[in-house]
Amino acid sequence: MRNLYIYNTMSRKKEKFIPGNNKYVKMYVCGPTVYNHAHIGHARSAIFFDVIYRYLQHLNYKVYYVRNITDIQNYNISSKNGIYNNIFTNHAEWSQYHINQYHNILYKLNVIPPSIEPYASGHIVDQIEMIKLIIKNGYAYIKNNSVYFNIQKYNQKFIYGNLSKRDIKNYVLSNYKNKEKINNLDFVLWKNDNNSELKWNSPWGLGLPGWHTECAAMSIKYLGCNFDIHGGGNDLIFPHHEASISQVKSCYNNNLAKYWIHHNMVVINGTKMSKSLNNSVFIKDILCNNKIFQKKSYNAMSIRLFILKNHYRNIIHFSDQNIQQSYQELKKLIITYNIIKNLCPSNKSTLNFDQVIDQCYNAINDDFNIPLLINILFKISKMIHSIQNKENCINDIDLEKIQKTYFTFLHDILGISLNIFNENINDFIDLIINIRSEIRSHHNYKYSDFIREKIKKLGIEILDSKNDSKWNLI
Amino acid sequence: MRNLYIYNTMSRKKEKFIPGNNKYVKMYVCGPTVYNHAHIGHARSAIFFDVIYRYLQHLNYKVYYVRNITDIQNYNISSKNGIYNNIFTNHAEWSQYHINQYHNILYKLNVIPPSIEPYASGHIVDQIEMIKLIIKNGYAYIKNNSVYFNIQKYNQKFIYGNLSKRDIKNYVLSNYKNKEKINNLDFVLWKNDNNSELKWNSPWGLGLPGWHTECAAMSIKYLGCNFDIHGGGNDLIFPHHEASISQVKSCYNNNLAKYWIHHNMVVINGTKMSKSLNNSVFIKDILCNNKIFQKKSYNAMSIRLFILKNHYRNIIHFSDQNIQQSYQELKKLIITYNIIKNLCPSNKSTLNFDQVIDQCYNAINDDFNIPLLINILFKISKMIHSIQNKENCINDIDLEKIQKTYFTFLHDILGISLNIFNENINDFIDLIINIRSEIRSHHNYKYSDFIREKIKKLGIEILDSKNDSKWNLI
Repeated sequence: MRNLYIYNTMSRKKEKFIPGNNKYVKMYVCGPTVYNHAHIGHARSAIFFDVIYRYLQHLNYKVYYVRNITDIQNYNISSKNGIYNNIFTNHAEWSQYHINQYHNILYKLNVIPPSIEPYASGHIVDQIEMIKLIIKNGYAYIKNNSVYFNIQKYNQKFIYGNLSKRDIKNYVLSNYKNKEKINNLDFVLWKNDNNSELKWNSPWGLGLPGWHTECAAMSIKYLGCNFDIHGGGNDLIFPHHEASISQVKSCYNNNLAKYWIHHNMVVINGTKMSKSLNNSVFIKDILCNNKIFQKKSYNAMSIRLFILKNHYRNIIHFSDQNIQQSYQELKKLIITYNIIKNLCPSNKSTLNFDQVIDQCYNAINDDFNIPLLINILFKISKMIHSIQNKENCINDIDLEKIQKTYFTFLHDILGISLNIFNENINDFIDLIINIRSEIRSHHNYKYSDFIREKIKKLGIEILDSKNDSKWNLI
Repeated sequence: MRNLYIYNTMSRKKEKFIPGNNKYVKMYVCGPTVYNHAHIGHARSAIFFDVIYRYLQHLNYKVYYVRNITDIQNYNISSKNGIYNNIFTNHAEWSQYHINQYHNILYKLNVIPPSIEPYASGHIVDQIEMIKLIIKNGYAYIKNNSVYFNIQKYNQKFIYGNLSKRDIKNYVLSNYKNKEKINNLDFVLWKNDNNSELKWNSPWGLGLPGWHTECAAMSIKYLGCNFDIHGGGNDLIFPHHEASISQVKSCYNNNLAKYWIHHNMVVINGTKMSKSLNNSVFIKDILCNNKIFQKKSYNAMSIRLFILKNHYRNIIHFSDQNIQQSYQELKKLIITYNIIKNLCPSNKSTLNFDQVIDQCYNAINDDFNIPLLINILFKISKMIHSIQNKENCINDIDLEKIQKTYFTFLHDILGISLNIFNENINDFIDLIINIRSEIRSHHNYKYSDFIREKIKKLGIEILDSKNDSKWNLI
């Protein structure tokens, strides 16, 4: 197992990963703005960082993983929907509904919850304290009871635009239409608002914090400055992450994070998915565990595999066909695991298993090349099939090794649950009873008694009457 | 269907339930202090109020249900465990772990999440504002940067002890050992603490809010004064709910809530379950969906039924035997539902079904007499069995009515999931393959082809080789 290399957006290079503490990794990921059902873009972010979380734990790091919930900035969106579509009483209830839906979807997608999931609305004091410090250090100004970050002032000491590689000289810095802002790049830290449903008391009066302050305040609160990994979608690089960096720098003269990891976007049938185009694909609509045998719905693990098959820095092209293909691949991967479990070892191995195990680690260590890792799992699958077909053989040491590696990567690290069934058990019990009734109607009591004994071991009792049979839990 | 009557702790009487708004019910329930795994007491509270939530919705009310998470007052408990048993980095991670566990357990117990689940740590600004108002109105005093509620002052205008029926004259009101408090009944609103890991800035310096202020501030924020229902365990009547009432009264000269519902405690093998006795029964230890056929673990729905079988104002006696009995009863109730579904109607009914349907509503309307309701469901069960055994008959109108009523009460209102299996599907598929292999080994290809066709309809393909058969998803 070699070292892990991560493509750092800050340097635009793959860098060897060295955490600040050799047993500990501190990671912050920008979570969802909760205003609608979880879509395929939310799933991409959650699943990709879940694999990083799982892999770092596999490397024996204790990972301190913070992913936030943005439940203040959703306010503008919610208030547009009248009284929340006449279903919800207020903003908090509306937000909670979408938070619950989000959690529910991630649970089905087998995403492990982060160590801490802070809510923006729950960290008002921390945001106010950060704004006070920025004002104190001279990087913010107050206008009409709102507070703005002063980019020009900041740029006199630091450089704004390091992460996005933008030169602010190329932007008009004055004469902006917004009369409150000095420069057009300046962003709001605290927004004065007496009429908002969502407002808190502050040293500047009633209002609410700006979006960029949320993440900056919450990440620093739980992880301190200069933590190991900051993640998010690449649409957040500018201005959100740039603004987070500048707030933390102006407070503590220190960096926010060391490694910046950004995943790419999702394209739906050739068009970028976006709120404005209203073309979001909601997970709830494509996910239906109860109907995996119907063509129009997908198993959660197919969606997970489909997302992971795409390199995180590439665009995902979502289409019916692509996800149906993932379902076929998912089945192959699971069947292979079932074959490995039941394989009989020989005296010798005719294939090089150490090599493929190395290749698994090399793939994921190379900036999380998960698509390559999945290809290697398929390579292992072919090897296993050739052993099953007696074209090759495997000794007991290799068998144990490959079984462990395959399970570790597929189940533990990629997070593919090996049991993709759910809740259809009654159908199968009914089928067994049915088969037995058919056999019984032909007076073949030998087989019907055989079935009765077998199903009893699974805790089911069969009750025969003249015309039919019923079943019962023992 | 008659009117709903609720035993109101405030009046110690059953009162007709009339919400403030005839379409709306506002309900607040004190949620868990998250410091350990969810125990049977947490389950009792969550399940009982879940049935109230479900029943009020069944009565066509829109229910606005707030249940909080107490994640500040757990600090004293956590800090005693060293660095959180060397597993957790800090208080927030430790709390989040227990919040996740709590949610996970409630999900398994089929408890519907409340409309809003506010965290105490997420409502510091609201608590500070409430304390400021109490000070402004003259009912609190500041000592060494801590703030205390002044009971004697409050009692000059209002009466402290209305809910618990305690007369504060019977309590020594001075010379208390705590030098900061004027009287021993005074309670802390804001605790000065510079050294706590958990602290926020406030007008009185760094510190944290007192327990009683949490619920008062959060319930009022989301529900306003004088909301419909306030619930909790009867151990909270004094001092917690008394203190909540007095804070709200001293702020707004108004009541906190109209109907006060308190459930009783849980006794473990004859001893009251308590933190100090360290005899808590954790749900995770008795709940194991995967092992419902082993004697030592219980199905989640057995636990739910067991809790509901006890009247909420009575003590629950938890024992192995009691919960095993609930499992037997659960099976009977589910089997009855399966029988009703398949029953054939006659031309006439020989039993009075309207009467038992009335009895169901009368039971739950009489201060949520759920044990009686369950008895009536068993009465229906007997009627159904007698119809199945041709001792009685039912016409189509009654059949439709009783099927709907039975399902509504058992599934919708009591929240008993009718599918108590989980994740054992592979065993049943393997069994079908096994039965078929046995039949095939005796060259009975007629039956084996029959089985192949039947299982194909469930999405399973059987692959035969010379020596054995494998299965595959289609």
